[in-house]
Formats: sequence, structure tokens, C-alpha cells
Amino acid sequence: MHCLTVLYSTPDDPDAFRSYYVEKHVPLALTLPGLIKANYAFPEPMGPGDAPFCIFQAYFEDAAAMGAALQSDIGAKVAADVPNYAPEGAVLCNFPIIET
Amino acid sequence: MHCLTVLYSTPDDPDAFRSYYVEKHVPLALTLPGLIKANYAFPEPMGPGDAPFCIFQAYFEDAAAMGAALQSDIGAKVAADVPNYAPEGAVLCNFPIIET
Repeated sequence: MHCLTVLYSTPDDPDAFRSYYVEKHVPLALTLPGLIKANYAFPEPMGPGDAPFCIFQAYFEDAAAMGAALQSDIGAKVAADVPNYAPEGAVLCNFPIIET
Repeated sequence: MHCLTVLYSTPDDPDAFRSYYVEKHVPLALTLPGLIKANYAFPEPMGPGDAPFCIFQAYFEDAAAMGAALQSDIGAKVAADVPNYAPEGAVLCNFPIIET
């Protein structure tokens, strides 16, 4: 399995982010083709350092399936929707899940 | 399930980090009591923003089990080992896994 991770830092208006994200962006993201499962959270920070305000993780069969999802029409819509709640953008990364 | 996430920024000596982390730190972290599963990766960054150099995720039954693990003798050893490969520390956060 391959994991797409999206990390958001604390926005200027956390409440506005939360409501748009939960009500509009996540439902859109969940329509990405090839998505096996996904989860998101507003994590509890622990200790020093800038913990992410929000984390989203989407799982695909492999890197190719993730790439196809991002390049699909829905992937374009998902990307275009981000500035509606996170004008400062998001940090994306991806990795294969190899459970230890 | 409850997820402990550890994020590392790019270290001064990535190779030294990798070898100590993979060979010594992860095997120690995997002995945390109550650990259900764990995975780690050196993710591929996508687009702008500072993607984490390394991400570790450990899954426990619930927040209480995670807290007990961190407060155990092994939890103390795991925390004390971090400066051996990441003198600048790590960012920790935790969240319940609620699959959408």
C-alpha cells in the first residue's frame, strides 16, 4: 500500500478551516479514484516543535495508483479546492507502507 | 485505534540518521508495550513546503495505551535515544484513527 500524506500548519482562522475542510474538502477528496481508505485528524501536539494542525492520509494500492488519482479530473478539483480553506497551502509527501 | 506520529526534519547528516534510525532506534521503538503496528518511511516530497525527512507512525488500541507506552521504561529509553541520531529533536503528535 502507498500513503499520500498531507500536512497543514495552523491557519489564520482555524474554525473556518475546520468547517470547510470537514464539510466540503474531505468529501471531495474521498471521491479520488483508486482510494482504498483515508483518515484525517486535527492532532494533539506533544512537546516542542510545530506539530501539524491537520493531517490527512490517503492509501492507494501503489505509487502508480496514487499518481493516477492525483492526475485525474477529481485530483485536479481536489487540488484546486485547497486555497478555499488553506490559502498558505499544504505540504504533501508520499511513501510506501512497510509495516515493521 | 490511536496513532502516534513522529516527524523529523532533514538532519545535518542524513546518512548517519538513516543508519542509526533503521538499525537501532526503530528496533527499540518496536518493543514499546501495547504497540499494535508501526511503519516508518523517508517520504518523497511533493511540491513546495518542507516535507518531513522521516515519518514514524505507531498504532495503539487507544490514547491510554499510547500514554502507558510512552511512560513505560521502554518509552523512556526510546525518548532518550532520539538525541543519538536527531540532536535537533522531533515533532510528535497523536490522533485517533477515524477512517472516513
